[in-house]
Amino acid sequence: MASPEPRFIAVDWGTTRLRTSLVDAGGAVIAHARSDSGVQSVPPGGFPAALRAACAAWLEAYPALPVVMAGMVGSRNGWVEAPYLHCPCGLSEMAAQLTRIDGLERDAFVVPGVDVRWEDGSYDVMRGEETQVFGTGIDDGLICLPGTHSKWVEMAGGRMTRFASFITGELYAALSGSFVARLAEEPDAPEAGQTEATEAARAGGGLTRALFQARTRVLAGDMSPRAVRPFLSRLLIEAEMAGASELFGHPASVHLVASDPQLSVYRSGLERRGLQVSFVDPATATLAGLNRIISART
Amino acid sequence: MASPEPRFIAVDWGTTRLRTSLVDAGGAVIAHARSDSGVQSVPPGGFPAALRAACAAWLEAYPALPVVMAGMVGSRNGWVEAPYLHCPCGLSEMAAQLTRIDGLERDAFVVPGVDVRWEDGSYDVMRGEETQVFGTGIDDGLICLPGTHSKWVEMAGGRMTRFASFITGELYAALSGSFVARLAEEPDAPEAGQTEATEAARAGGGLTRALFQARTRVLAGDMSPRAVRPFLSRLLIEAEMAGASELFGHPASVHLVASDPQLSVYRSGLERRGLQVSFVDPATATLAGLNRIISART
Repeated sequence: MASPEPRFIAVDWGTTRLRTSLVDAGGAVIAHARSDSGVQSVPPGGFPAALRAACAAWLEAYPALPVVMAGMVGSRNGWVEAPYLHCPCGLSEMAAQLTRIDGLERDAFVVPGVDVRWEDGSYDVMRGEETQVFGTGIDDGLICLPGTHSKWVEMAGGRMTRFASFITGELYAALSGSFVARLAEEPDAPEAGQTEATEAARAGGGLTRALFQARTRVLAGDMSPRAVRPFLSRLLIEAEMAGASELFGHPASVHLVASDPQLSVYRSGLERRGLQVSFVDPATATLAGLNRIISART
Repeated sequence: MASPEPRFIAVDWGTTRLRTSLVDAGGAVIAHARSDSGVQSVPPGGFPAALRAACAAWLEAYPALPVVMAGMVGSRNGWVEAPYLHCPCGLSEMAAQLTRIDGLERDAFVVPGVDVRWEDGSYDVMRGEETQVFGTGIDDGLICLPGTHSKWVEMAGGRMTRFASFITGELYAALSGSFVARLAEEPDAPEAGQTEATEAARAGGGLTRALFQARTRVLAGDMSPRAVRPFLSRLLIEAEMAGASELFGHPASVHLVASDPQLSVYRSGLERRGLQVSFVDPATATLAGLNRIISART
């Protein structure tokens, strides 16, 4: 049986990680490698060497194979700055606005990030998530990508129409080391803090009131110290979901780009709100997105 | 002319500071001292010595003069734990529930903190602010005490009926060192970030969306890096005020216990909302509160 014929090298290059995949014409992964050579650890001018270190054998074995990259590699501190594509935008605009990288003796491209200006004056950006969004294959509906800066993306007719970021993960990290979390102990039960977070989110007074309950409910003996961190996490996710509903209305379903543990928490949160949930793993979505983008180009 | 006759020694003993005042029968301050011997820096069993170090001359000159203390000195990690008084409560309950301290060879008391259980399941506590609240002399209306954990207190018929905490100051400190504030430069203008914060607060999507605008509006060139920290501060204060409105309705006036720079920011925020603002300095409110409490007792 013949080896599968590779079609391109997919590069998912984020702030802290580098993932490379050898992908065949059907979009299947032939081989895969990952390292900690994230964009923040690459010295100026060091991107070609870092890529070669990550997949030297493939580059040598397939001298004409194109390389397609997504993520922070296209940011100001990356290999090249790939300008933002503006919402609304679809796969064809994305494929037409790839930023070419010279000097690799093969076709090499970086996928653009996407930005959006809202009528309300807000401005938002993404870099890396756009590839996952197109990798979902969702043409109409709402896509949620949980993370440090969770994104909620509205799709219509195959185009990204609007999106919004919520600093859920960043705020959780900042609060975990702050006073309100000082009584926290290691969580034990998977559902810890859920009832209390739902109650606090509904209580009125907004997020900055509800967050103080991470401390006071423990002082009162109403909540276990083991529930403090899950309470904070769930409360921030409740706030994110309420915010997304306010911006995007109440769809029948949401597509999640997530893996566990976030997948479980977001999934149960959405299902409690009566929404249908489908989902895909982020790494799978990135590969599918890169494959769709390169297919739209060629 | 005779020296004024002192009536008691007032002690405002917080986490990081100790303030002592010699107070006459009219509530006026005869002498004043302050140090950094906050509760957190006092070793176990070290409270009597720390108090003597702060006001040895007064203790010696007036061997029978009572000492009345408020603040974290009454917490679990303080001199004695002064149990919380429950809302609703007034000056008479407070005066009746002073916790006596033995071994000083004079009358010495700690004012209780106050807690509240809301019908919505929330639990809240204060320690130190209750003295300021009664020091305002406000019998009916809404009192706001900005801070690390801002308090909004509802008064009716001279009694504290309900109150809520908002972690405005804590969240500001946590976010100032976090990613969304990374583009920040030193603020220049006093009104920096106000327009953008008002716009972001109104934009919908909630606080965790609006906070991301501290970064994106600078990326877009819509906001100066000098406005980042004022933007964050004002946004959190907007959230606090919106939360307080949700809980306590829209009164005609609010009484602030604050000094600058917080006083100016809160005052202008409340006035923009069409509210009448009166205010008192926190140190003045504490002294007046201790004076009213000891007067209610004797």
